[in-house]
Amino acid sequence: MEMVPQTMPLRFIPLGGSGEIGKNLYVYEYGDDIVVVDCGLTFPDEEMFGVDVVIPDITYLLGKADSVRGIVLTHGHEDHIGALPWILKQLNVPVWGTRFALGLVRRKMADHPHLADCELNEIDPDRDLTLGQFKVSFYRVTHSILDAVGLIIDCPAGRAIHSGDFKFEHTPLAGPSTDIQKIALAGRSGVLALMTEVTNSGDPGWVPSETNVSRTLHELMSTAQGKVVVSSFATNIARIREVFHLSVEHGRKICLIGRSMRENVEVAHDLGFLNYPEGEWFVDIDDVASVEDGMVTILATGSQGERTSALSVLSAGSYRKLKLGPGDLVIISADPIPGNERPFYRMVNRLCRLGVEVVLNDEAQVHVSGHANVEELKLLLSLTRPRFVVPIHGEFRHIARYKKLALAMGWPGEDIFTLGAGDVLELSSSGARLAGKVPAGRVLVDGLGDIGKAVLRDRRHLSEEGVVVVVVNVDVQSGELVGRPDVVARGVVSNEDAEPFAEAVRKVVCSAIEDAEISGPDELESARAAIQSAVKRVILDRTGRHPMIIPAITLL
Amino acid sequence: MEMVPQTMPLRFIPLGGSGEIGKNLYVYEYGDDIVVVDCGLTFPDEEMFGVDVVIPDITYLLGKADSVRGIVLTHGHEDHIGALPWILKQLNVPVWGTRFALGLVRRKMADHPHLADCELNEIDPDRDLTLGQFKVSFYRVTHSILDAVGLIIDCPAGRAIHSGDFKFEHTPLAGPSTDIQKIALAGRSGVLALMTEVTNSGDPGWVPSETNVSRTLHELMSTAQGKVVVSSFATNIARIREVFHLSVEHGRKICLIGRSMRENVEVAHDLGFLNYPEGEWFVDIDDVASVEDGMVTILATGSQGERTSALSVLSAGSYRKLKLGPGDLVIISADPIPGNERPFYRMVNRLCRLGVEVVLNDEAQVHVSGHANVEELKLLLSLTRPRFVVPIHGEFRHIARYKKLALAMGWPGEDIFTLGAGDVLELSSSGARLAGKVPAGRVLVDGLGDIGKAVLRDRRHLSEEGVVVVVVNVDVQSGELVGRPDVVARGVVSNEDAEPFAEAVRKVVCSAIEDAEISGPDELESARAAIQSAVKRVILDRTGRHPMIIPAITLL
Repeated sequence: MEMVPQTMPLRFIPLGGSGEIGKNLYVYEYGDDIVVVDCGLTFPDEEMFGVDVVIPDITYLLGKADSVRGIVLTHGHEDHIGALPWILKQLNVPVWGTRFALGLVRRKMADHPHLADCELNEIDPDRDLTLGQFKVSFYRVTHSILDAVGLIIDCPAGRAIHSGDFKFEHTPLAGPSTDIQKIALAGRSGVLALMTEVTNSGDPGWVPSETNVSRTLHELMSTAQGKVVVSSFATNIARIREVFHLSVEHGRKICLIGRSMRENVEVAHDLGFLNYPEGEWFVDIDDVASVEDGMVTILATGSQGERTSALSVLSAGSYRKLKLGPGDLVIISADPIPGNERPFYRMVNRLCRLGVEVVLNDEAQVHVSGHANVEELKLLLSLTRPRFVVPIHGEFRHIARYKKLALAMGWPGEDIFTLGAGDVLELSSSGARLAGKVPAGRVLVDGLGDIGKAVLRDRRHLSEEGVVVVVVNVDVQSGELVGRPDVVARGVVSNEDAEPFAEAVRKVVCSAIEDAEISGPDELESARAAIQSAVKRVILDRTGRHPMIIPAITLL
Repeated sequence: MEMVPQTMPLRFIPLGGSGEIGKNLYVYEYGDDIVVVDCGLTFPDEEMFGVDVVIPDITYLLGKADSVRGIVLTHGHEDHIGALPWILKQLNVPVWGTRFALGLVRRKMADHPHLADCELNEIDPDRDLTLGQFKVSFYRVTHSILDAVGLIIDCPAGRAIHSGDFKFEHTPLAGPSTDIQKIALAGRSGVLALMTEVTNSGDPGWVPSETNVSRTLHELMSTAQGKVVVSSFATNIARIREVFHLSVEHGRKICLIGRSMRENVEVAHDLGFLNYPEGEWFVDIDDVASVEDGMVTILATGSQGERTSALSVLSAGSYRKLKLGPGDLVIISADPIPGNERPFYRMVNRLCRLGVEVVLNDEAQVHVSGHANVEELKLLLSLTRPRFVVPIHGEFRHIARYKKLALAMGWPGEDIFTLGAGDVLELSSSGARLAGKVPAGRVLVDGLGDIGKAVLRDRRHLSEEGVVVVVVNVDVQSGELVGRPDVVARGVVSNEDAEPFAEAVRKVVCSAIEDAEISGPDELESARAAIQSAVKRVILDRTGRHPMIIPAITLL
């Protein structure tokens, strides 16, 4: 009898994100080999009180640490590399990325020195990488950051294509266009699955060309009389380079403000992505006042209105040496990130208030997206013709729209998979199936460690209603109060009401203690409950609020 | 010598909103007569922890209570009538409004019984109203609510036109079009100032007609197989009426869900704005399961994703008797309110996850705005040709764009005024000028009363870092601790870390008390500070956090 070799399936598992949509970190597993793709973070939403960053839960990887051959990065945006400092601390495996992506990772060493002990390997997109039984090939893509790649991931079970973030752009401002030929070749030899980003699946047509933005910026600079401020993402070196060129063309010196703008420009320059005549064209913020208004371009971080960012500080008029006013022009070369409209427009309003002319992307094309629109998503499907389609890296509404598009192109619904964090998708030539769930999801990082749900629940309560602390001392012999109860309220009443408020609380606490007849530790719990409910009632009557009430009873 | 009669100026003052942009309540003052226009509220932003509503500060009116002739409402939206329950409690003056606006005010009596004692007068838009030396005339306008009006306000100093919220719509689904002739006539006799809303000054062209929405809804219902859910603002009776008609046409019964949807439909019906064959066409949510899926339209509140609204509850699958799934269609007949994108799309994502087909306004025209676009704002300027222009009721960025538009139409910059809350604009035939500031702005209402800045600051701190209470008893004779310190933390550490955390805090508290050598109340303050700083340090080292620390020291 001949032995038929058992083909193992390729296992694909997103570990970050939510149970609904997995994202930020993807596991490709074949037998004893695991390749991790990307290692990103997200920023907390408004319900995550006090949380600094949200990173993927890698419990699953820690249990198979010996199998992890490394982490391959598609590009250097924070939602693809930002969790590395935390993840590498728990699982120190080699990291592969393009030159610019690694440049941005290395920049994190200042805040996370332990990264210096990690193995960071630069990839050459024209050379394949062997990681255990996986072969990873790369194709260059255009995105809103330089040096981004898509991945062709081969293993004995078949080929997966992992799009990373991408768009098709025939005339990028810098860097190569997406390598359509290489994708087509990879597709022609048969693709088991396409893991594709779907961020812009609700946007029809093609993303307009970057050259439109260049043209608009040129026109705006041609007529500008005063200072010109351009704000864009600090990682968008192609856009920044264009602003450099246009400024030089219009005889304007360049002033960089915002830490990440200065650092990224330095990284890009050091790595050869950005050439400029040293010194000559730059002016420091401390000297910007000495340059004529019409002779300077200010490149600023803060296109999203982040509280402490450069443009936000400018809009508040808080730079001592750089003030904006009538005659100056602020170009926000970015769209508000969905969900971030409030701080974005709050900053725009402040700029308008200064009398500055503000140009947003809805008025003139000063920005284009870095993500593929509907027709580009279709093109990728046609180029790759995968057996199975796995939309990743979008919200559920984007996935729903993408699914419609793939159905219209002929893929049957059962060949399109939506994965939540921890969902295991097994893929092989004989089919694809969901094969259970592994631990995964969001880890909320606050200060030095992660925090749990109970802590967040308490913070929400505190944030909405405040806290009242009641301190009482009881003589265990007589069951009577010693001294008067101490009442401390925070976030409940204003200073002028504080004393009458405390007096009212004290009164009900005194009667509650009297009624409790405490004669030992056994009655403590019920006395606490009695104080809780009496104080709760009097505060609700007085203020209509439900603060957190913390009674502290000491028996003497 | 002849006496030249001194002409007094008309004073215009917004009292709500911020120091940057006044809104929600407007004062027209001439001599001893004050007419108030609108009395609206706004909802708290994400920084106003625990605040329920935000109302205008009427300190100025309370100081001139005898002069206030009444409050005139332009229409029944919450940002124009919502503050009445609070304001009338402080200043019980007559209110004038159209039938539907007053119907919505009366609906508030259930929650605010004292409104029953207030004087609510229905206006007839064809008849003028005399209030002291003011004559107020009305012209009908189209808006996203029925029975809306603009105001022509005459006094000896001249004529002001107060646009209210409006658009020009030649084919409204219900109610009359904006009365262009009456505006033109009022304009022809000379207008001192135009107070105009500018919400959509960033939107080019004209607002598309409501009939487009009707056509799209018709097409969607024609092909829908399962349940159809339409969500729109509960005040948009014209839209609701259209959904009724289309449902009847397609043989669908109507199920209303959400308190305000049911109540507003009732108000509109009782007042004659909405005719329907009683009973027959309606189905209660409890019986909706008995109706075939293809035979029912559900009209739901919650188009903004408000946490407890009907559509939000539906998206969470939490109605026992009404579940949505594949084959069902949800039409969100509204745009997300700027700044509200997060909850809006969060709900959309949940609906997509149920497998429901979701149609938003970016995919098919299922909504049009109620506010005038750029060309309509220009038309109003041409119809009224005011001497002075006062853009109101928009964000600063809207005002900046409007100003550009008015400049392009020939108004000099110095004749266009932007007012913050409390700014007094004096207008007369001899000119206009800013004449100081009166107390005004936002009052934050939480529970039963207003709250101050210090309370909000504490809540923000609590929300981000939590609170630690340290209770110690000290023997004043020996300066030594009695018993062990009690440590209560909320929103700081998870339950499993609570005990080691408390132990670490106790340790530093004990040494702090020892070092303090307390021998009487005089050392209390410094002991408190010592505990604060010791506890702060140990918590920062352990957790990287900065909770609020409340030390309570009792001397025995």
